[in-house]
Amino acid sequence: MKNEKTAVVLVSGGLDSATILAMAKERGYTPAAISFDYGQRHHFELAAAERVCQAAGVKVRTTVKIDLRAFGGSALTSGLDVPKDRSEGEMTSAIPITYVPARNTVFLSLALAWAEVLGASDLFIGVNAVDYSGYPDCRPEYISAFERLANLGTKSGVEGLAKWQVHAPLVSMSKGEIIRRGIELGVDYSLTHSCYDPSPEGLSCGHCDSCLLRLKGFADAGVADPIRYAG
Amino acid sequence: MKNEKTAVVLVSGGLDSATILAMAKERGYTPAAISFDYGQRHHFELAAAERVCQAAGVKVRTTVKIDLRAFGGSALTSGLDVPKDRSEGEMTSAIPITYVPARNTVFLSLALAWAEVLGASDLFIGVNAVDYSGYPDCRPEYISAFERLANLGTKSGVEGLAKWQVHAPLVSMSKGEIIRRGIELGVDYSLTHSCYDPSPEGLSCGHCDSCLLRLKGFADAGVADPIRYAG
Repeated sequence: MKNEKTAVVLVSGGLDSATILAMAKERGYTPAAISFDYGQRHHFELAAAERVCQAAGVKVRTTVKIDLRAFGGSALTSGLDVPKDRSEGEMTSAIPITYVPARNTVFLSLALAWAEVLGASDLFIGVNAVDYSGYPDCRPEYISAFERLANLGTKSGVEGLAKWQVHAPLVSMSKGEIIRRGIELGVDYSLTHSCYDPSPEGLSCGHCDSCLLRLKGFADAGVADPIRYAG
Repeated sequence: MKNEKTAVVLVSGGLDSATILAMAKERGYTPAAISFDYGQRHHFELAAAERVCQAAGVKVRTTVKIDLRAFGGSALTSGLDVPKDRSEGEMTSAIPITYVPARNTVFLSLALAWAEVLGASDLFIGVNAVDYSGYPDCRPEYISAFERLANLGTKSGVEGLAKWQVHAPLVSMSKGEIIRRGIELGVDYSLTHSCYDPSPEGLSCGHCDSCLLRLKGFADAGVADPIRYAG
């Protein structure tokens, strides 16, 4: 099913983006990977993105530097504390403090700009609306709205040269299903990083929402999580 | 008609953005101004944005640095030549080489992120679909699509705290009408900069699409353009 088309894949270094990179390749796309150095609390994520891309044989890659800290407004880009040991109910009942305002809109816009220059018309993003943190910009209706915007707001969209598609293949999968799918595709999850609040050495805390969702996902998949935790 | 609401206004330093800044104030908004240092060919634009904001008494202001040159694909962000002395037909018959891929999508996304942090729900952008350069992301249907995206992709949109509005008050005005309106509102167009290809001293070329549209606008408005041209 090779189609030789380039797809721009948003790669954060987490397990979702490692999985969609493998899925994009399975669907025959040549992945061009984009990552964002947006002033996140730590750089372990970007190191993981680099490892994941290398393992997947990605040849075209860019990291966009954009300082979202200048805006503030999130525990992930400011000095606010990351919440720990929350129940599933707490995690999904309201949009958490780790929400970064309009982050996926900013990231998808930059991916769109790069894709248009590359002549690509496919974007892959690892958003997930099942085992997720309640972020508004992870829902299918949001993804459709962005696709529509892309077709109206780009040269290629208007000229009909590209019919933009935003692929969000994980959107209705559970974390456990994502992990099982990734393992079938040969994803090495030991290369990924999910924790919002790692130790100075880069060990995952095991208690933030992201670690808890990850650990539950591996438990549901019946597989051991290959990364190391701090305690 | 004071409503004490903050609106984020995209200010490039051109005549359109100087006009919408005045219009936002006239409608009772307190403007927060956002500009973009995106790797444009010259910095006269950003200096003009600073002058325009000072003259308008803007108190909240940010300039986001984002290197769109890394992507390339436009005469405005690369070494490609800016076209000169084109007829109106040439200017509007196809999307020109000065189009920066997905630029307004990137800019609006960042404005949205900042506005969400500020607690604002109004954005002002000076796009214009009449005397314009044929850019796809300057059309009313594009602006509506972005508004929809904002309401789906932000915390405040989802929680119903903010009903996002993207104001594009110039969208169906001619350049001449824009200038007449701005003069009524006291805009000092000598502070603005429009040229894509200024001299090293910052004098406008008078021959690029942007200068030609500007000069035609002043001619239509029956007013002399107060800026200096190179020849």
